[in-house]
Amino acid sequence: MARVRTLSDLGEGRLIDRIARAARRLDQTGVVLGIGDDAAILRLRPGEDLAASTDASVENVHFRFSHQSPVHVGRQALLANLSDLAAMGARPLGFSLALAAPADLELARFDGLVRGLLMEAARHHCPLVGGNLARASQTSLVIHVYGGVPRGRALRRDALRPGDRLFVTGELGAARLARAAAERTGRPLRQLPVARLAAGRALLGLAGRGACIDLSDGLLSDLGKLLEGRGLGAELDAESLPTPRGFVRRCRELGLDPMALSLAGGEDYELLFSLRPHAANRHTLAELKRRLGAPVSAIGRVFRGRGIRGVPNTPGFLHY
Amino acid sequence: MARVRTLSDLGEGRLIDRIARAARRLDQTGVVLGIGDDAAILRLRPGEDLAASTDASVENVHFRFSHQSPVHVGRQALLANLSDLAAMGARPLGFSLALAAPADLELARFDGLVRGLLMEAARHHCPLVGGNLARASQTSLVIHVYGGVPRGRALRRDALRPGDRLFVTGELGAARLARAAAERTGRPLRQLPVARLAAGRALLGLAGRGACIDLSDGLLSDLGKLLEGRGLGAELDAESLPTPRGFVRRCRELGLDPMALSLAGGEDYELLFSLRPHAANRHTLAELKRRLGAPVSAIGRVFRGRGIRGVPNTPGFLHY
Repeated sequence: MARVRTLSDLGEGRLIDRIARAARRLDQTGVVLGIGDDAAILRLRPGEDLAASTDASVENVHFRFSHQSPVHVGRQALLANLSDLAAMGARPLGFSLALAAPADLELARFDGLVRGLLMEAARHHCPLVGGNLARASQTSLVIHVYGGVPRGRALRRDALRPGDRLFVTGELGAARLARAAAERTGRPLRQLPVARLAAGRALLGLAGRGACIDLSDGLLSDLGKLLEGRGLGAELDAESLPTPRGFVRRCRELGLDPMALSLAGGEDYELLFSLRPHAANRHTLAELKRRLGAPVSAIGRVFRGRGIRGVPNTPGFLHY
Repeated sequence: MARVRTLSDLGEGRLIDRIARAARRLDQTGVVLGIGDDAAILRLRPGEDLAASTDASVENVHFRFSHQSPVHVGRQALLANLSDLAAMGARPLGFSLALAAPADLELARFDGLVRGLLMEAARHHCPLVGGNLARASQTSLVIHVYGGVPRGRALRRDALRPGDRLFVTGELGAARLARAAAERTGRPLRQLPVARLAAGRALLGLAGRGACIDLSDGLLSDLGKLLEGRGLGAELDAESLPTPRGFVRRCRELGLDPMALSLAGGEDYELLFSLRPHAANRHTLAELKRRLGAPVSAIGRVFRGRGIRGVPNTPGFLHY
């Protein structure tokens, strides 16, 4: 029987070549100099600022190879970063990968991680432009993504104001439900949301737009980041939260609280954004859906004060 | 006796606040939006490309707390990245930090790492603009640095040509000697080179410049990266390699081969660059020193062919 091949069979140079060859197949628009020099050189369009974000995925902290295929881990790792660009209204320009792994990591897992990253990269025209390989006791991917955003116009968390109406794109709770189902059944996780890049860019052009954040940790947690330290609170209409078809039934089958999942589930990578009242009144949800290219739901409003109202206050609610 | 405080005593939110407060004291020129949003927003100058580089420092792979203070680890981690910008001729614009650590990492070590990073950042006007904290079994710092470089003019590794003359800034072997001394004596490493940012930018303006790389892995290894796959070889004048005063004596005291250290030592973060023959003939070393703001030594030339000639061929030479 053939021995399982590991990273130590190839060594750093050949592993980098392996990544670089695959990376060169991606669209290189905006890349002046990619993998292979001391730094990557990227070109913004005239009048653009740079948007840059970092995210880490650590084995047994953020993902488990027992529950997720390497391809899925790779895709999700880049998705989380692209979603950060979406939340700024930025267009992707490229990304870099710092991969740390034990020398005995199976080469098939390494290849799967890279394939997943590049699948997601191809989908959003976000070429891999550089990175770093290091030995470590645990596998981890630190991804750094670059984007361009029209000068001085990036969507910001700190643009929330009293009176703003709150909206979300897409549906909430689906990612957490899928993860729970995968854990119960032992089948690997397959489902993956789409980074809302087009919606973020469309939002940038909307008069009367307020703040924006992507939903990585869950609605309550991420809404809290918009409110925190600004003397603002929010009233949510918990009954109006958009969830997938059959969501309540599938939650009940797994013994999960559907409201808890939609409020605090996380990893949906939808956008939570606000509009000033006049803008919220001017646009119907159907118009917003058309402009943003994604379903949009009105879920509440912002007030001067503290806390998030209108959510069920069951003991232990947030610790499901 | 007071219990030693660890990361788990503070938690992610307060640790990020701790970093953000310290980071805000740095010069924020070029930073439109720093720590605290989904992405950082940075502004390049008109006519600049983005130069971006990543480097990882992993505990017990790249550094040991037993040999280096946390401040020194932090400083060196950012230095390695700034040196990559120097090798492109870029000016620093900012950096991000992805720090992974066990929950029981002593808070004093965390603070030391951050202090070291910010010391080096202040020295080179390179503000911390974002990042990520994650739990992991091993402490690691993945640093991402952004710079601006005049459009289409970045120094490149692939610009080497036959006939080019080779030069290095500063002195070689000092870093490896200092590390060896620290390991022998058990005294922590204190010495740290300076990223050659000014020299890189000056080189960018020099007519007849060729290729450039920073010396992180050692002269032979990094020169190899300039030559590799291009049908080029180099003739080195090993006797002309610049070393610090008293270098040979201090190497002998530690039982080290001075030639091996200067050829293959690494971590000196000097620049290795080439000039076309006409440019090399036009400028004296004194002129180059004045323009680059650093000592410059002529160390060899490039030819069409393969290999590096002129270096001692002692058995086991490179495996000291």
